[in-house]
Amino acid sequence: MKFSDWLTYIQQRTETALDAVLPAANVAPDRLHEAMRYAALGGGKRVRALLAHAAGSLTHARPEQLDRAACAVELIHAYSLVHDDLPCMDDDKLRRGKPTVHVEYDEATALLVGDALQTLAFQVLAEYSVSTTASGQIEVIRLLAEAAGSRGMAGGQAIDVAAAGKELTREELEFMHLRKTGALIRAALLIGARAGEGVSEDRRRRLDQYAKRVGLLYQVVDDILDAESDTATLGKTAGKDAAQDKPTYVSVLGLQEARRFAEELLAEANDTLAPLGERGARLREMADFIAHRAF
Amino acid sequence: MKFSDWLTYIQQRTETALDAVLPAANVAPDRLHEAMRYAALGGGKRVRALLAHAAGSLTHARPEQLDRAACAVELIHAYSLVHDDLPCMDDDKLRRGKPTVHVEYDEATALLVGDALQTLAFQVLAEYSVSTTASGQIEVIRLLAEAAGSRGMAGGQAIDVAAAGKELTREELEFMHLRKTGALIRAALLIGARAGEGVSEDRRRRLDQYAKRVGLLYQVVDDILDAESDTATLGKTAGKDAAQDKPTYVSVLGLQEARRFAEELLAEANDTLAPLGERGARLREMADFIAHRAF
Repeated sequence: MKFSDWLTYIQQRTETALDAVLPAANVAPDRLHEAMRYAALGGGKRVRALLAHAAGSLTHARPEQLDRAACAVELIHAYSLVHDDLPCMDDDKLRRGKPTVHVEYDEATALLVGDALQTLAFQVLAEYSVSTTASGQIEVIRLLAEAAGSRGMAGGQAIDVAAAGKELTREELEFMHLRKTGALIRAALLIGARAGEGVSEDRRRRLDQYAKRVGLLYQVVDDILDAESDTATLGKTAGKDAAQDKPTYVSVLGLQEARRFAEELLAEANDTLAPLGERGARLREMADFIAHRAF
Repeated sequence: MKFSDWLTYIQQRTETALDAVLPAANVAPDRLHEAMRYAALGGGKRVRALLAHAAGSLTHARPEQLDRAACAVELIHAYSLVHDDLPCMDDDKLRRGKPTVHVEYDEATALLVGDALQTLAFQVLAEYSVSTTASGQIEVIRLLAEAAGSRGMAGGQAIDVAAAGKELTREELEFMHLRKTGALIRAALLIGARAGEGVSEDRRRRLDQYAKRVGLLYQVVDDILDAESDTATLGKTAGKDAAQDKPTYVSVLGLQEARRFAEELLAEANDTLAPLGERGARLREMADFIAHRAF
């Protein structure tokens, strides 16, 4: 399948899978469930779902198992966006071209939507198999929890909040982003690979190196887009990092060096995959997609 | 062991177990980890931990396994309190006799503390065995996720928020509280029992009936205490239900009928356990403790 067709195909599969695991909007409490669906459905590039499926192609994983992995990581991602947009965090009004959850509903609902989407991610992994064994499934749950928690994504957010108005070194910026964005991207890849047959130690190491590069790449490009694009193109408020005086790869490295760094990360990510041959094709295409996306 | 000694013993075990699973305050991000410890350690009656241990005595579960079950449910409970106290929810300043997390730290930190405590609950269950089998462990994770999510605790909170200023029928109040408080209490009991040897269908059914009674009992007594006690005794703001115009068992039934209902629930809980004999002793003591506690 051509990459652009595969992209649309996986995005549609993920939408269908999320729709199936989210409680219907007429199940009590209705408003909470409606708001959860508003937050999690109908938008987003689904990069984490795509990465889970791409990693699954390394290990011949079944698409149905990858759908569950994709759901779990996208639910965690969706929860983090809802909470990140709250007034006490980034106070953002626009997300994926729509009003953010606390604007469309209210703050209390947005708080509970995030809380419940996080729970649902773990519930999906407790109810549907990603791995073919129960112990493998527990490993999948552990990977997701590690990535989402205080030493992963939530910790990265805490560092991000504390960094507003401060100057960070390049190393500190990397430390933050490996957690804030990188941890969940890594989990998507490792969980996707875990859905199929066992991976050799060498392959797992390569996938982990790829994950680190692609996680940083995603963030560097995000920072470049935030500095360069307009709000209509992004579907979220552009220029907000500068407005909130947050350190970014653009503010720390400058635009030109940030672009160079992105190309370097892309090349490294692809080099890491070279020995995997054809099975690594989707992962290489994904790295390229992440590097050259326009939103 | 005398009940009051057992109470202290389990409370101390739970504190030690929570201390061990919470990241140290000098692990980066330090402030987040310090605030997570502030929220989860050093206080509370640990009712859910006690119930998990009491249910474990039904099935001869090992105390170490019950500690992990206790940690997981107490972490979910702690997260829910931190988020419930936020300005967009109950806007409370005092909890367990100390300033609430957003008062002691800030709102963004409190949001992330709650988020990360929830994740940690699932991480504990992915890293440490409660059940002796991997498939049993997944069942434990499923029980916790069901109880915490939008059809459980978070859903109950959403109904609670929407109920401010409204009149609820007794049935609607029960529907809300079975979710808001009852779901996690039920999970504590079922997970505690799951830690030991298998339970017969009859015993599981009895435990479930007991759980429903005790969950409601806890809330009825909470409503009575909120109406009757002062802030110093409760360690949290007293009279806040009335101040926020929230329906409670006291506002719906009146104080006298609420007291009568509590005694009825206590008697029913104990009747349910009667056929279990000596093994149900701790559960009966716990029901009595929940009914007659002063805070």
